[in-house]
Amino acid sequence: MPTDLAEGVLAGDRRAAARLITRIEDGDESIRPALARLHICGGKAHIIGITGTPGAGKSTLIHKLAKCWRKAKKTVGIIAVDPSSPFTGGALLGDRIRMQDIATDPGIFIRSMSSRGNSGGVARATADAVRVLDALGMDIVIVETVGAGQSEVAVMDIVQTVVVVVVPGLGDDIQAIKAGILEIGDIFVINKADRDGVEAAQRELEMMLEFDDSSRKGWRPQVVRTVATKSEGIEELIEKIEGHRDMMKKEGLLEESERRRCRREVLELLKHKAVLSLLAEYGPDDFDALVKAVAERKMHPHDAVERIMERKKG
Amino acid sequence: MPTDLAEGVLAGDRRAAARLITRIEDGDESIRPALARLHICGGKAHIIGITGTPGAGKSTLIHKLAKCWRKAKKTVGIIAVDPSSPFTGGALLGDRIRMQDIATDPGIFIRSMSSRGNSGGVARATADAVRVLDALGMDIVIVETVGAGQSEVAVMDIVQTVVVVVVPGLGDDIQAIKAGILEIGDIFVINKADRDGVEAAQRELEMMLEFDDSSRKGWRPQVVRTVATKSEGIEELIEKIEGHRDMMKKEGLLEESERRRCRREVLELLKHKAVLSLLAEYGPDDFDALVKAVAERKMHPHDAVERIMERKKG
Repeated sequence: MPTDLAEGVLAGDRRAAARLITRIEDGDESIRPALARLHICGGKAHIIGITGTPGAGKSTLIHKLAKCWRKAKKTVGIIAVDPSSPFTGGALLGDRIRMQDIATDPGIFIRSMSSRGNSGGVARATADAVRVLDALGMDIVIVETVGAGQSEVAVMDIVQTVVVVVVPGLGDDIQAIKAGILEIGDIFVINKADRDGVEAAQRELEMMLEFDDSSRKGWRPQVVRTVATKSEGIEELIEKIEGHRDMMKKEGLLEESERRRCRREVLELLKHKAVLSLLAEYGPDDFDALVKAVAERKMHPHDAVERIMERKKG
Repeated sequence: MPTDLAEGVLAGDRRAAARLITRIEDGDESIRPALARLHICGGKAHIIGITGTPGAGKSTLIHKLAKCWRKAKKTVGIIAVDPSSPFTGGALLGDRIRMQDIATDPGIFIRSMSSRGNSGGVARATADAVRVLDALGMDIVIVETVGAGQSEVAVMDIVQTVVVVVVPGLGDDIQAIKAGILEIGDIFVINKADRDGVEAAQRELEMMLEFDDSSRKGWRPQVVRTVATKSEGIEELIEKIEGHRDMMKKEGLLEESERRRCRREVLELLKHKAVLSLLAEYGPDDFDALVKAVAERKMHPHDAVERIMERKKG
């Protein structure tokens, strides 16, 4: 029974958590009451998104962060929505082996999510997987994504604190984040900070953040340097990450941000469900005929949409 | 009258085209009959997407492509959905001045589109702007985007041939395209091919394409080297771009791809309209109350969505 799974998760049963996440990935509708129960009982974890291109060292950074939090007696959930992550088995064997020491720690729960499928679907499933780890009692839940593409930005919408990882010496890389993830980052990590070009990278980042006009009310994005492989800068990064949440809480911004995230999630889910329901009612064959008419330039997409929505009304 | 604008565009009036695109950007609903008319009369242009990170030299490449097509007596429309493009005024003055020689050519129409707002909105507006330039009689319509973020991938969904521009010496850059745009590229350009690392970049690209399992039926993605600033490789690139469309036409794939694109556009528009209509009916205050209940963990987003959809039924 799905509700048993929910009770299992709330009692700290890791296998129940793993099974529930599998059913989330499968899009199993019968677990909705279980997810509702977990959502109602949750809300304690600090949800952190860590994003950046492959090769930036995200996984090593997460590995070190997790170990550091474990020393402070905090439990850590890790959800990797990144096919190139060692956590998902996508990386070199050596990297995966290095991660093993945390994989056997009962205070750590690691799970990969498929990043296939449309971005909305991935973000929806990840949001529910976060609910599971939160209800399982994880103090920290880290969501790892590759910082490119639709899914990743959509996934970062569901976390409380967004950490963007870059490496020095990639001018174009830093340029590129202008396009997509500058606005969403709360903390920028320059990893591999023992490489040449770290000063230039920091200057460039800080200049871009200076001109960034996105509204982060009350929070000025921070830049931190790390050398994850040598465990350098990890504690400072943890301070900044926790500082972000503390500030949000103190300024009463956490609720507002929670409301914004819930609004987006409800809207995304509404889009998905509304279209499914409209198409089911209109019929797949009639829908195909409409698409054909648009492709053959007999009607504009607007007219097709109007027909679908009008049949619903009538 | 919006329909006059449509007739103006069909008669080749550039000012009518510019005005219509402004109204598309404004989300003006009264122009829908005009857009329908243009869609019905269109379908002649080859729609080409050019994407890649800032600094890859996309704008210079587009500049040279446009000049080359003009020599062949083809008219060229350029739509820049890239805030860093000289075409949108986002680049250095020197770059913008270099583009001037094509800006005054009556066989070229350049227009920038705002990339603000949600990705769906940008893609919808760009699709309609493409319709305007197609109906204006442009043989080629180029859509320029930055290759990162949601909007860009969504915009590339509306073109017939996708060109991805990379530069050598950015291992991580090429790694990054795995994440998002490898699957969507029909042609990969290694620009600045007079730089070190071009061989390695080409090998890496070709290896990645080898393992790429996305279904591009009948088309094997091509790699072309260019030095746009020296006009090198431009003719070869044009050959590949035109070759892609010729193959699509010959194999009867153009219609299928058009149908897929129309299906996506209808679905996106349907999502947008369905949610607007559901929210209007549910009422903004009641919706806010629902979101608040979700944020306060009294109900799961699924339950909120169910309530909104049930009121519609009742």
